[in-house]
Amino acid sequence: MVEIKDMLGERAIIRQDGRQVDELRPVRITRHFTDAPEGSVLIECGNTRVMCTATFTAGVPRWRKDSGLGWVTAEYAMLPRATAERTDRESVRGKVGGRTHEISRLIGRCLRGVVDMKALGENQIQLDCDVLQADGGTRTASVTGAYVAMVDALRWAERCRIIKSAGKVLKDCVSAVSVGIIDGTPMLDLPYPEDSRAMTDMNIAMTGSGTFIELQGTAEHRPFTRDELGRLIDLAEKGNRELQAAQRAALDQD
Amino acid sequence: MVEIKDMLGERAIIRQDGRQVDELRPVRITRHFTDAPEGSVLIECGNTRVMCTATFTAGVPRWRKDSGLGWVTAEYAMLPRATAERTDRESVRGKVGGRTHEISRLIGRCLRGVVDMKALGENQIQLDCDVLQADGGTRTASVTGAYVAMVDALRWAERCRIIKSAGKVLKDCVSAVSVGIIDGTPMLDLPYPEDSRAMTDMNIAMTGSGTFIELQGTAEHRPFTRDELGRLIDLAEKGNRELQAAQRAALDQD
Amino acid sequence: MVEIKDMLGERAIIRQDGRQVDELRPVRITRHFTDAPEGSVLIECGNTRVMCTATFTAGVPRWRKDSGLGWVTAEYAMLPRATAERTDRESVRGKVGGRTHEISRLIGRCLRGVVDMKALGENQIQLDCDVLQADGGTRTASVTGAYVAMVDALRWAERCRIIKSAGKVLKDCVSAVSVGIIDGTPMLDLPYPEDSRAMTDMNIAMTGSGTFIELQGTAEHRPFTRDELGRLIDLAEKGNRELQAAQRAALDQD
Amino acid sequence: MVEIKDMLGERAIIRQDGRQVDELRPVRITRHFTDAPEGSVLIECGNTRVMCTATFTAGVPRWRKDSGLGWVTAEYAMLPRATAERTDRESVRGKVGGRTHEISRLIGRCLRGVVDMKALGENQIQLDCDVLQADGGTRTASVTGAYVAMVDALRWAERCRIIKSAGKVLKDCVSAVSVGIIDGTPMLDLPYPEDSRAMTDMNIAMTGSGTFIELQGTAEHRPFTRDELGRLIDLAEKGNRELQAAQRAALDQD
Amino acid sequence: MVEIKDMLGERAIIRQDGRQVDELRPVRITRHFTDAPEGSVLIECGNTRVMCTATFTAGVPRWRKDSGLGWVTAEYAMLPRATAERTDRESVRGKVGGRTHEISRLIGRCLRGVVDMKALGENQIQLDCDVLQADGGTRTASVTGAYVAMVDALRWAERCRIIKSAGKVLKDCVSAVSVGIIDGTPMLDLPYPEDSRAMTDMNIAMTGSGTFIELQGTAEHRPFTRDELGRLIDLAEKGNRELQAAQRAALDQD
Amino acid sequence: MVEIKDMLGERAIIRQDGRQVDELRPVRITRHFTDAPEGSVLIECGNTRVMCTATFTAGVPRWRKDSGLGWVTAEYAMLPRATAERTDRESVRGKVGGRTHEISRLIGRCLRGVVDMKALGENQIQLDCDVLQADGGTRTASVTGAYVAMVDALRWAERCRIIKSAGKVLKDCVSAVSVGIIDGTPMLDLPYPEDSRAMTDMNIAMTGSGTFIELQGTAEHRPFTRDELGRLIDLAEKGNRELQAAQRAALDQD
Repeated sequence: MVEIKDMLGERAIIRQDGRQVDELRPVRITRHFTDAPEGSVLIECGNTRVMCTATFTAGVPRWRKDSGLGWVTAEYAMLPRATAERTDRESVRGKVGGRTHEISRLIGRCLRGVVDMKALGENQIQLDCDVLQADGGTRTASVTGAYVAMVDALRWAERCRIIKSAGKVLKDCVSAVSVGIIDGTPMLDLPYPEDSRAMTDMNIAMTGSGTFIELQGTAEHRPFTRDELGRLIDLAEKGNRELQAAQRAALDQD
Repeated sequence: MVEIKDMLGERAIIRQDGRQVDELRPVRITRHFTDAPEGSVLIECGNTRVMCTATFTAGVPRWRKDSGLGWVTAEYAMLPRATAERTDRESVRGKVGGRTHEISRLIGRCLRGVVDMKALGENQIQLDCDVLQADGGTRTASVTGAYVAMVDALRWAERCRIIKSAGKVLKDCVSAVSVGIIDGTPMLDLPYPEDSRAMTDMNIAMTGSGTFIELQGTAEHRPFTRDELGRLIDLAEKGNRELQAAQRAALDQD
Repeated sequence: MVEIKDMLGERAIIRQDGRQVDELRPVRITRHFTDAPEGSVLIECGNTRVMCTATFTAGVPRWRKDSGLGWVTAEYAMLPRATAERTDRESVRGKVGGRTHEISRLIGRCLRGVVDMKALGENQIQLDCDVLQADGGTRTASVTGAYVAMVDALRWAERCRIIKSAGKVLKDCVSAVSVGIIDGTPMLDLPYPEDSRAMTDMNIAMTGSGTFIELQGTAEHRPFTRDELGRLIDLAEKGNRELQAAQRAALDQD
Repeated sequence: MVEIKDMLGERAIIRQDGRQVDELRPVRITRHFTDAPEGSVLIECGNTRVMCTATFTAGVPRWRKDSGLGWVTAEYAMLPRATAERTDRESVRGKVGGRTHEISRLIGRCLRGVVDMKALGENQIQLDCDVLQADGGTRTASVTGAYVAMVDALRWAERCRIIKSAGKVLKDCVSAVSVGIIDGTPMLDLPYPEDSRAMTDMNIAMTGSGTFIELQGTAEHRPFTRDELGRLIDLAEKGNRELQAAQRAALDQD
Repeated sequence: MVEIKDMLGERAIIRQDGRQVDELRPVRITRHFTDAPEGSVLIECGNTRVMCTATFTAGVPRWRKDSGLGWVTAEYAMLPRATAERTDRESVRGKVGGRTHEISRLIGRCLRGVVDMKALGENQIQLDCDVLQADGGTRTASVTGAYVAMVDALRWAERCRIIKSAGKVLKDCVSAVSVGIIDGTPMLDLPYPEDSRAMTDMNIAMTGSGTFIELQGTAEHRPFTRDELGRLIDLAEKGNRELQAAQRAALDQD
Repeated sequence: MVEIKDMLGERAIIRQDGRQVDELRPVRITRHFTDAPEGSVLIECGNTRVMCTATFTAGVPRWRKDSGLGWVTAEYAMLPRATAERTDRESVRGKVGGRTHEISRLIGRCLRGVVDMKALGENQIQLDCDVLQADGGTRTASVTGAYVAMVDALRWAERCRIIKSAGKVLKDCVSAVSVGIIDGTPMLDLPYPEDSRAMTDMNIAMTGSGTFIELQGTAEHRPFTRDELGRLIDLAEKGNRELQAAQRAALDQD
């Protein structure tokens, strides 16, 4: 990060990758990435690459039976060499780690937040987000990509006449982005080198109508003030608007 | 919840347990609850009761060795009949569930947020938060109680001359409280019946100087607006100020 | 332990905590310790403190279905800092240890020993014994406390008209106590420092009518003779009579 | 069991397999059953067949290091079709069951009870008792057989000059037998059909000098009186004396 | 292995145990080794000893229900001291290892290869192969022994009139043998010392009519040529013919 | 599969996907598929897509220390929606399944078969093969792709001067292909619909010099004759030659 002392104020700060503080990394959303799933998306946010699949199945888990309501759930995982150092497989260790659990639950809540369970009927959507390459923001990219995969799965179900209308199941769209404070400066969409130096790190999932579904801020290294919180939310609002434009653009191609 | 239509506005809403919307449940902090741990606290927030112990041990986990820095970690668990229905023990099921993992990690981050790891030196504090009775807000009560247990453990270490000064290790105090929106009304400190009906549910950990360490808002049922976020934070600020007064009062008794 | 050489014989031996060799530690039984369970008891035997809850549920495990008989089962666990050194949680280690298994099974057998399964009908009672503080005799305290919790659960079931009569389900009462031989002297109710030095260690569960349900003696360090066995049983009979008086006193308060 | 009313009293009771109430099933101890282990014994008590191996290794577990003391430990398991109905493998279920844990610990304590850990030095003996066929009394047969395997392993270590003298390590011999009350009659050495009908079931491990190492009595179905306890112990004393004669006979053959 | 340079060519090579290169170790098949299983066989190939039991049960696993077809499955395991060094129990480690999995699956496939699932009807045969002593070739001995145990279980089912005819269920017989290349020479039936030095190691399961069911060759240490493959198969054909004669001889005794 | 009765014989059989019986599916090998690993390859064989990464690390597992030799190991896994029906994650089920274990071990053996462990020195290569899309032949595609990833990792190590020469470590190249008998006709490179109908299914790994490293044939549904084996090997030789050409072509691009 190079700080240029001039009259432009905050915008003069140039990040290591050349971005402005309020600029997203390039986003690329590839639909129909694989053939088998009802929805299959590869989302790339800078160097972060996540494969998101949506599995649509008739029926719901036992505890949900005869409720007339559907269910949406998510699982997140990293391939062993998504990261600079290889991480052992959780299958080999015999248990799912705390971080994985935490992120899987976050993704599930975000997606459920835009689904009308009654309109879905007693059907289930399982979202699988597998990180092929990790460079920060894997959980937020997962939310953004999983939404597109879920839409494809719902459209498939509509075509198969399992549900009446994909549109009615979707109450809104949802995307998520990370923001953080680095050396005192609030920034949008942190790649790994920034993320690991952030004093505060926040993941914010928002709907297309600008409301919040998840807001998770963590400040192990230096607590943040209410003012800083305000500026982080400003950045997240901008980032999510742009991510949702990318989602729409991808979904319009058919 | 009974809504009284009169001129008093929001304050006229009386909750099922008779509290105002911005009122905490009664808090009771009992130090030295058991004898063996370096810090042992029973915290009661209404009917929620959590036993928080702090274990101080020389040395740090392997990945932290020779860093000159200490470490703080936390584990949360519920006794089987803390709840209305018995829940199976995670030891018997053979794995820690996602919710438990998520909460343990949250508590750890909150406590680490107020500890100067350099001043702690290569020592470790393990916080165990075991819920004896659950009536909503168990994770926030755990943070608030664990802080007091941690202070006791640091004072013990100071008396034993393992660390120079408990005060230097503590950068600030920390407490946490839940807030949420019920039937459209933001409220402070939700007991279980309110929590399960909340459209939005937020857990906010703050320091004594009024900054934020953790802010976790979830809105599976209805997204919240930026305005509502503002009012929830107002309530959390009030609640945390009062919880920190209770912490101080408890710690002053010796 | 101080041995006073005088004419009083064995009674002159004073234990570290000032007790006679045939004297129980102070017993305190608190019913309704928590609100949710059908039976909830805190039992304190000296510094040993165990929370015993009884969960009454309609129906029995699958293997017992359509037998017309009920079932009683127990689980024992220690909180991590019940002991001087922190012990890792079994949930985190991913398996229940041998000692825990052994004790859970012992408690279950003792309680089943006084229950008329036919009178209980196809209902199940699950006893959870969680040790808050351990100072020897945690398994015997668990049996003694769990009995009181079970009675409360049966009375609750009677009030709810799920069973006809709590009295008919209970064939007798049951309590348990530890005895052991320390430096050659048989003693009643061993706290941890004595227990760890005992040559022989025996846990004896008895009914109110003076018969035996469980008798588990172990002599890894020095085998015991049949004479010594006789004297240990004498002590256990005295101890169990007194524990049963404490149970009755607690159960009479309502 | 056929009861013959005549003048002979108790002795007139003939068991299903034709034995007297105080009669052991035929015992056969085969040493050197397999080649690899330092001690390898097949013990047959009636139809119960257990393969007991003793593994002698230099060094002790970490927690025992630099104590100058040895260690003895045991593991018990059943082959899937040792029983009338196949039982799933514990390896496949992914955990050791409570019963297995309990029995493994019992065997370990019994064998440790006759070993001078100082004379053993920092060496370890691991006893593996695998039940090939189960017809009651598998845990007691395991103790009796494991003792012989352990002696062979100690003699091997003496020949290899790892220990000075097998005789010095062995403080005494040990065997175990089951006794129980069936239809009100105390009996020795219960095969499965008797065991499953027993009101009281007791496993008693004794040394060659007639003292007790383990005494585990359980009376889920009908508590026993002190008189009955006395008669059960009489039977166990007789049974163990005979088992020890069989051990000696086997060990004398070389 | 001693190589004698004379006119006899390959046959002049004498192995450490005195066998010719194309000679099996002595085979011994003991039926009715234990009483409880429907089929129970001890197979000994040299010093390798495997206990094979066959459990016949009505009904099939859930995924096979209402197919009208039966199922055959196998589990393989080693007792801890089957080997020179003790191996930890997989039950204690909490998971089945890769080698065990691989072998269990191999045995299952071999046995299914000779069973007419339609003639078996909705019944299941579970084969358990437990290695009492391991000296190479445990997986092939398991296949050979399990076949005999399976035949006994089918004959039992025929006698019980659960199936019409054991003969109709069996499409053929099956046995397996190991072959390998040691110091450049193809050899039949490798004991452990040869197996561990083999450049190529192959396990070949064949039917009575001389066709192949499984052929698993591995050449981590030196790849093999197509010529060598031909000679290994020649050896395996000879070995399997002899093993099948031993199976027939054992099955004819009744 | 359409059979055309004309003079061309076997070649007249056209497969569902239009291929000849001895024709591979289109192969595409993409190197540098992701950035972090030392070797990262996407291999596509028809619709089967496997991501193969090679992790090069200094040092070897503990059991291999101070041997002067390196180590190569592999892990295989399927993403949940690689298949038509979603399969549960092994991390969530808490254990690695038998099929996964078996395939991981196969891949490891194949790659070790072409590595000179002495030239590698005390370094380790971990190969991770994650199936993004499965359409038959995933294990053989994994071997073929992993070889290319391993070469890239060795070249990286050579450039970093950790090893002297990648070429010296590689004794040969290795690829693998599936062959099988469908409706009596031997065929090369089976996609899933053929694989599931195959009577015999064989995976054959070969070196560049035409020798065999692994040969695994399974014939649960109909045993194969020695003649058929010959023809299957012919097909595999052709297939592996072509796969090795594709490997060379990919490795020549830089």
